[in-house]
Amino acid sequence: MVCISLFKALLIREKYSKLAYHRFCRTTAQFLRNAENMRWSEDDEVLPDICPCPTDGEDPYRMENIPENLNYELRMKDGIVHVYDNAETLRANKPHDLPYPDLETFAIDLSHVLAMIADGPTKTYCHRRLNFLCSKFYLHEMLNEMAELKELKSVPHRDFYNVRKVDTHIHAAACMSQKHLLTFIQKTYETDADRVVLEKAGQKMTLQQVFHSLNKDPYDLTVDSLDVHAGRQTFHRFDKFNSKYNPVGASELREIFLKTDNLIDGEYFARIIKEVAHDLEESKYQHAEPRLSIYGRSPDEWDSLSKWFIQHKVHSPNMRWIIQVPRIYDIFKSRKLVPNFAKMLENVFLPLFEATVNPQDHKELHVFLKYVSGFDSVDDESKHSDHMFSFRSPKPEQWTGDNNPPYSYYLFHMYANIMVLNNLRKERGLSTFQFRPHCGEAGSITHLVSAFLTADNISHGLNLKKSPVLQYLYYLAQVPIAMSPLSNNSLFLEYSKNPLREFLHKGLCVSLSTDDPMQFHYTKEPLMEEYAIAAQLWKLSTCDVCEIARNSVLQSGLSHQEKKHFLGVNYPKDGPGGNDIRRTNVAQIRMAYRHETLCNELSFIVDAVKSETMAS
Amino acid sequence: MVCISLFKALLIREKYSKLAYHRFCRTTAQFLRNAENMRWSEDDEVLPDICPCPTDGEDPYRMENIPENLNYELRMKDGIVHVYDNAETLRANKPHDLPYPDLETFAIDLSHVLAMIADGPTKTYCHRRLNFLCSKFYLHEMLNEMAELKELKSVPHRDFYNVRKVDTHIHAAACMSQKHLLTFIQKTYETDADRVVLEKAGQKMTLQQVFHSLNKDPYDLTVDSLDVHAGRQTFHRFDKFNSKYNPVGASELREIFLKTDNLIDGEYFARIIKEVAHDLEESKYQHAEPRLSIYGRSPDEWDSLSKWFIQHKVHSPNMRWIIQVPRIYDIFKSRKLVPNFAKMLENVFLPLFEATVNPQDHKELHVFLKYVSGFDSVDDESKHSDHMFSFRSPKPEQWTGDNNPPYSYYLFHMYANIMVLNNLRKERGLSTFQFRPHCGEAGSITHLVSAFLTADNISHGLNLKKSPVLQYLYYLAQVPIAMSPLSNNSLFLEYSKNPLREFLHKGLCVSLSTDDPMQFHYTKEPLMEEYAIAAQLWKLSTCDVCEIARNSVLQSGLSHQEKKHFLGVNYPKDGPGGNDIRRTNVAQIRMAYRHETLCNELSFIVDAVKSETMAS
Repeated sequence: MVCISLFKALLIREKYSKLAYHRFCRTTAQFLRNAENMRWSEDDEVLPDICPCPTDGEDPYRMENIPENLNYELRMKDGIVHVYDNAETLRANKPHDLPYPDLETFAIDLSHVLAMIADGPTKTYCHRRLNFLCSKFYLHEMLNEMAELKELKSVPHRDFYNVRKVDTHIHAAACMSQKHLLTFIQKTYETDADRVVLEKAGQKMTLQQVFHSLNKDPYDLTVDSLDVHAGRQTFHRFDKFNSKYNPVGASELREIFLKTDNLIDGEYFARIIKEVAHDLEESKYQHAEPRLSIYGRSPDEWDSLSKWFIQHKVHSPNMRWIIQVPRIYDIFKSRKLVPNFAKMLENVFLPLFEATVNPQDHKELHVFLKYVSGFDSVDDESKHSDHMFSFRSPKPEQWTGDNNPPYSYYLFHMYANIMVLNNLRKERGLSTFQFRPHCGEAGSITHLVSAFLTADNISHGLNLKKSPVLQYLYYLAQVPIAMSPLSNNSLFLEYSKNPLREFLHKGLCVSLSTDDPMQFHYTKEPLMEEYAIAAQLWKLSTCDVCEIARNSVLQSGLSHQEKKHFLGVNYPKDGPGGNDIRRTNVAQIRMAYRHETLCNELSFIVDAVKSETMAS
Repeated sequence: MVCISLFKALLIREKYSKLAYHRFCRTTAQFLRNAENMRWSEDDEVLPDICPCPTDGEDPYRMENIPENLNYELRMKDGIVHVYDNAETLRANKPHDLPYPDLETFAIDLSHVLAMIADGPTKTYCHRRLNFLCSKFYLHEMLNEMAELKELKSVPHRDFYNVRKVDTHIHAAACMSQKHLLTFIQKTYETDADRVVLEKAGQKMTLQQVFHSLNKDPYDLTVDSLDVHAGRQTFHRFDKFNSKYNPVGASELREIFLKTDNLIDGEYFARIIKEVAHDLEESKYQHAEPRLSIYGRSPDEWDSLSKWFIQHKVHSPNMRWIIQVPRIYDIFKSRKLVPNFAKMLENVFLPLFEATVNPQDHKELHVFLKYVSGFDSVDDESKHSDHMFSFRSPKPEQWTGDNNPPYSYYLFHMYANIMVLNNLRKERGLSTFQFRPHCGEAGSITHLVSAFLTADNISHGLNLKKSPVLQYLYYLAQVPIAMSPLSNNSLFLEYSKNPLREFLHKGLCVSLSTDDPMQFHYTKEPLMEEYAIAAQLWKLSTCDVCEIARNSVLQSGLSHQEKKHFLGVNYPKDGPGGNDIRRTNVAQIRMAYRHETLCNELSFIVDAVKSETMAS
């Protein structure tokens, strides 16, 4: 019974992954087919489409070959954008043939997994398997540590410093170090003191006037007075942490330097991001996936953001962009910016559908979307919601109260729209998006259940500590998890209690990311600082850190072409066959161990399912 | 009684400090005079003489104004160099009027402190005081944390990034990161493949031939194959750690790249050190005190080292040099390089006396010594010695066996020679040296007793954890301790168990240092990495890290002029009066707390001593 429910849960994730062009672990899929007495074939695999990085000499902002207008009609229904071929089918309520998820099925699937994680025997089984995975790795380490090291020593020209690493979770508004931001502000002031940069209460202000009003001399500014670094004061205080985004505690400076949509068209923000990108390009082997915000306050946000991107030429070969949508409907509602939750969803997603149906009229957004690889859902997960998400929950159009919908409600509706959008884009031969929410940083364990269904991969995942069943499911499905132990250390969990090392040992697909270098890091190389501290504190071997780096590339929204280049041409294969040690510096012994171990765990489930079905 | 023995111990340290021109905490001295009903005066203070850094435009290698030959005679006696005005006084055995320490007094003083640290009531008293110091700081933190922060925020233009920091303990042969060494070797090979760089078994070899014999292609070399980084394998294995100094496990590469005295006159080693120095100069606010080795195998080592220094122009304004003497008499003896321990001491110290008496004949050494600020004693402290140091121990001339003398024996004889040398140099108006041994990294607690008497300051001090009495004495005397938690983490003590944080809280004078960036660190800024990890893991406040940085400048061998510039003109004063917050970024609240707390602890002792003497 335990194995059957694990099997079902994996099938559920597979279903939602396929629908949304999310990735699903190939080995797991093979075992699932086996359990169903079917043959797995590579052709069944559903893969995301991600635009390859423009080659040298190609203009990344080129607006040619833009597809024609399909003249489709678009309507939001139950919080999900529906596509109609024309006005007639719209009237007949016959949408274009795309999979539209329905809340009821989803709620049933969700409740299946929810019930499962509370089931005693399932908990015991998963707990034991996880313990076994731990001990097995310990044994592997004792026996093969030196052999792994020997393998790595014999790899020419490749070591931890020149394997590719992706900072899989980083917020654009905090992607620079505190010192970098400080220097940038001072440098800017030297040349631009008299430039009008802000409109406040109807009055235009120069940079000098702004500093004057704050009673600060930019030359005397220090990282202390800038006060953007997290400290002891932020532990378990997400509210205090959020206010650290305001340099000198002043929202004015955030507005001027860290926003895309301001009086100077986000010029400073673009410039500092490009400085960060330049450092990554210099390092050659480091990439980042910064999050830019779309709030859903107004439908113009997308046009403004893509204009910013193209006007300031923000693209970098070492960056892929992710759109973060903060879960702050309640704030917009209380400020009367939106009438209901559906409107917020519409503001976020409808423009994307429009740009997909008619890119000719949204050329800038069309180009920008080439470099956007996915969506993130962000905010303080520890905020409690009174509402319990179920199939009886009000539809987004009916969500007119002041309360914020719960986490799962947000996730389902974001997933649903991304799913439909991906299918539409796939039809048109355009790139698809991955849903990569913040999940399990704090709050209810149910968050991790929602993400298990809806997410391609997640950020944080700390709370997997608390549920053996979910942890084991994330292992079996190899759901990538971008972890940020230094961020956690300042906000939710002491470094020494961080489960990253344990997750890595067990074989979960974990990567290292910085989250917010501005708030957490000290050195000029935040991602290296993150790796260095993990390696020092947990005494990780070279093979361990290179495995994490490899995971980060796998997890990332880099294109197929780039991944082939960084990991080896066979990277979609699991096990040693998919690993090019000369590129990844991960020992084949390690790859074989991981693959055999996963196959072993999956075969238990398959065998049990098969004998059960035979018996019945 | 407890207070009287603490008082005596402090007097003993003061005596040895004054004799050797070591520093002694001013506040402590004031209380000691008070207890003796005497008046303290600034004129009584004995201070080291350290050459100021040459100003811009001044040639640091200039060989002018070199003092005349004094024509003194020099003889080693009981392992200590004795100075005679001329051949006559030598024959009459009437040495020049300098303080010569004698082993018996030292042994008695040593045994006094040794007895004390084992005394029950003293242990209880010190343990309680230390606990009190901990709780008191905790209270201080709760009450004043925000006030300290506010003070720092109002300091213009000064933050943690631009306060001066000295890497107080770093070995020159490991002062570059592994990646830096790798790149340096590869770069060098590109231009110098055909250069003869090594003589092995009578045969001269080019760089190409060396790599050929090692079966390596420099282009394919990686940090993995270089294999100089400490890992899990080095924990509690100092032997394995020592062999990490050999790149690719090959002593040939160490000889070529990390030695001052080789076929290419140490050219590569000088070049890579100068690259490290260049990075420090670029950073502007970081300094280092690298250790260069003098072994005592032969009397020529000093000439060779100073020639190297001057020929390759190794001086940097951001570096001060320390000479490390490894405690490996046993190895030299077994290889028949020295007949007894006295010969080794003579090889180390006699050349210094000669250069001091007659700098004209040792011009290069004379110039080099301007930039040498002290001596270090290094090796694995966990190696046990069978011999128990006492006044019955054989004199160095009689130490002819194959056994290594114990730690305390080494320390006394190094101290004794440095002391006489310093007095001689002071007479001549030359710079003096500080004795700064490795101490308390491992091994017997007695090491820390010897260093309490003989050292200006120490490196490591981990074992103070184990002795409340010594820990309290190091606190009362404010003996600076250069700690390297990342090094300890790889060798002797897990990071989380490192006592640095606790020592800092109690008010011991601790600084942060890297020890061996080549073996331990990952980023391009090893000292910042050390600070970053400590700050992250222990959640240190800005005031904490700035206090550590200030301690590092105090502890260092930087000149009085430099310290005035970096800490403020009144830096020799204790308490807030000695602190220039605009330079150090240490809150005055913190300075006042430290000063009041130290005065409070000292006054207990003074009061007890006074009432005791009145009673008697």
